[in-house]
Amino acid sequence: MLQSTLFPKTLRDTPKDEISTNAILLTRAGFINKLMAGVYTYLPLGLRVLKKIENIIRKEMEQAGGQEILMPSLHPKENWEKTGRWESLDVLFRFVSHYTKTEYALGSTHEEVVVPLVGNFSLSYKNLPLYLFQIQTKFRDEKRAKAGILRGREFSMKDLYSFHTSEEDLNKYYEKMKGHYMQIFNTVGIGDETFETFASGGSFSKYSHEFQTITDSGEDTIYVCEKCKIGINKEIINEQNTCPKCEAKDLQEKKAIEVGNIFPLKTKYSEPFSLKFKAEDGTPKDVIMGCYGMGPSRVMGTIVEVHNDERGIIWPEAVAPFRVHLIGLGNAMADAHKLYTKLLSEKVEVLFDDRTEISAGEKFADADLIGIPYRVVVSEKTLKENKVEIKKRSEKEPKLISEEELLNYVG
Amino acid sequence: MLQSTLFPKTLRDTPKDEISTNAILLTRAGFINKLMAGVYTYLPLGLRVLKKIENIIRKEMEQAGGQEILMPSLHPKENWEKTGRWESLDVLFRFVSHYTKTEYALGSTHEEVVVPLVGNFSLSYKNLPLYLFQIQTKFRDEKRAKAGILRGREFSMKDLYSFHTSEEDLNKYYEKMKGHYMQIFNTVGIGDETFETFASGGSFSKYSHEFQTITDSGEDTIYVCEKCKIGINKEIINEQNTCPKCEAKDLQEKKAIEVGNIFPLKTKYSEPFSLKFKAEDGTPKDVIMGCYGMGPSRVMGTIVEVHNDERGIIWPEAVAPFRVHLIGLGNAMADAHKLYTKLLSEKVEVLFDDRTEISAGEKFADADLIGIPYRVVVSEKTLKENKVEIKKRSEKEPKLISEEELLNYVG
Repeated sequence: MLQSTLFPKTLRDTPKDEISTNAILLTRAGFINKLMAGVYTYLPLGLRVLKKIENIIRKEMEQAGGQEILMPSLHPKENWEKTGRWESLDVLFRFVSHYTKTEYALGSTHEEVVVPLVGNFSLSYKNLPLYLFQIQTKFRDEKRAKAGILRGREFSMKDLYSFHTSEEDLNKYYEKMKGHYMQIFNTVGIGDETFETFASGGSFSKYSHEFQTITDSGEDTIYVCEKCKIGINKEIINEQNTCPKCEAKDLQEKKAIEVGNIFPLKTKYSEPFSLKFKAEDGTPKDVIMGCYGMGPSRVMGTIVEVHNDERGIIWPEAVAPFRVHLIGLGNAMADAHKLYTKLLSEKVEVLFDDRTEISAGEKFADADLIGIPYRVVVSEKTLKENKVEIKKRSEKEPKLISEEELLNYVG
Repeated sequence: MLQSTLFPKTLRDTPKDEISTNAILLTRAGFINKLMAGVYTYLPLGLRVLKKIENIIRKEMEQAGGQEILMPSLHPKENWEKTGRWESLDVLFRFVSHYTKTEYALGSTHEEVVVPLVGNFSLSYKNLPLYLFQIQTKFRDEKRAKAGILRGREFSMKDLYSFHTSEEDLNKYYEKMKGHYMQIFNTVGIGDETFETFASGGSFSKYSHEFQTITDSGEDTIYVCEKCKIGINKEIINEQNTCPKCEAKDLQEKKAIEVGNIFPLKTKYSEPFSLKFKAEDGTPKDVIMGCYGMGPSRVMGTIVEVHNDERGIIWPEAVAPFRVHLIGLGNAMADAHKLYTKLLSEKVEVLFDDRTEISAGEKFADADLIGIPYRVVVSEKTLKENKVEIKKRSEKEPKLISEEELLNYVG
């Protein structure tokens, strides 16, 4: 993509109404733009990152046997009344059609839709287990939207629902899913900072497991047992402040961002909708359920909180909007354009800074702010030596290499 | 994908609450499921088709210079008041946060968001033209939802907005976009039935152009001039019932479905938001705009209305959920499974009917209902001759071919 036509330009100044690192950097670098509190537009660079994260999550959910569907955001009131959450779920947006007077909820989670959906089809033990997931927009009437794209009123969510014949089968899958979650966090570059954490189940279940990423700016407090490498959410830490697994006492208090949450729902939502399956002995039995949430937009914000420096974002390779930021300088622009075409033909994702009225210093500052993993400079100086200059965003020193070496590096 | 695990099974009976062909066939074949009037879940097969259509549209919009973004569904009341549409647009869902008392609209179109978005960045003539598009969920408070996924209260929409320095530049792009639209309709298999049609501009502009697909079940009436190969919407047909272009009198009245609508907005939305650019002479001037809508879910429903027979859907190849429906019968199941693996390794998209307790007749009926382009049968009979049986969904007679020939056919 040509940077001369990319919408929008980067911003020199810190947006006045943002205080979180992710919102400041993503706004200045042109990834997102705030429409109002807790509601953001994803601009071309931001949408590329969001889609990469979504695709990494999608692939892993398919590995976990998930079949992808897409459920609506408009939900009928009746379904939410059946579970009692029409009244009890405070973040639920509720409204009425001025034409038909139908009352709707805007989906903040989808148990109230997926359970009756599955119930439309007669289930036998032969059809189970069944795993359905979607990647879809969720809406929450948050009292206070905060922390940029970490806690919005409208955001992207992956939610998988599992349906089982027994609690044993649920437990097996639930444990397996923890591995898939950690695989995703490793791939997107926050695996080292992310801990499986015991937590309460909120309105969903008796207990749950969160995945918490340690950063200075986290809104949760968790205690990490260095021996077990697990976390315990502040809400459920016991009075003795000991690890519930190994009883160790040296728990480290840490600030963290919740990047995933999984719940053993058991029969909490199958009961109100009478979701049953025909067992081997022919009798109807309650379907046992689990649900598994992860917000791609929240993961994106967390990556920025973890990977940045005073100059801008440092994207991990798997989620970067482009692999290479190619910068043409001065009279070397035509040669840079040739290299751009060559890289494209090798299927390398390149953002090409082809702007002619911008100084080298401004171009380098933009590149650092945007945070693409490899910065490649073509200038009169590099051409003299028949080389290009390459620098990793995460490293300090550039080096000169040949075009051939470059292709080995980034191809 | 294995049909034994695919969710859900096909339905033998016509759903009681559907009357349109697209809703009946898509529901019975397991592509969609109705949550309530005008609101549908896309099931695994349906989501595959929807995404293929979206990707065809996306690619063509990128060809047209479009940069993809993703705007929110939650809109602030102020923006809609500025254009006067908070009161005047009857299909707008409006509601209030019970926490903050903020008033929101649910996006039914995005001029009220995209214009101030672009206005956040100072524009010069050098930044124009600019083309931004998104593929996103839209909400409309329809008085009466009808015709399955053709007119829903929640649906998928591609909307591109173009920004120009002059009406001449808008007109040039507007004409070019007509070609991109027809290219999309050709690719998804409804090009022969789709006519560019003069229409009113509704709340958007003085006039507009629709793309209308002729089918028995269309909700619009258009008049087609056989000489010019263009349509005229009933709303704006002149009193003499003549073609406004060639004045021919032999206009054919036809029922049609609107599958696209493009509008020369000019300054209708840039004015209320004071969206200006700095002209070459340094003075600020109004930005000239166009907008270009196309609903992927509506296109999907239209394809089904056009391509079906008494046994089910007949998907055009570019949008089919799979390319091959492989059917294993009786004792040939293990050999069918080998062929399945081979086709997957050749990157052929295959739905494999590996079910063992279903009769051949039921499998063939399901294949006809689902409508995948190539049906391939492996049975004891075909194995004896060292062949497989292939039949196109759109043709009547099967033929026996070797596995090698099959790969040439479908690879």
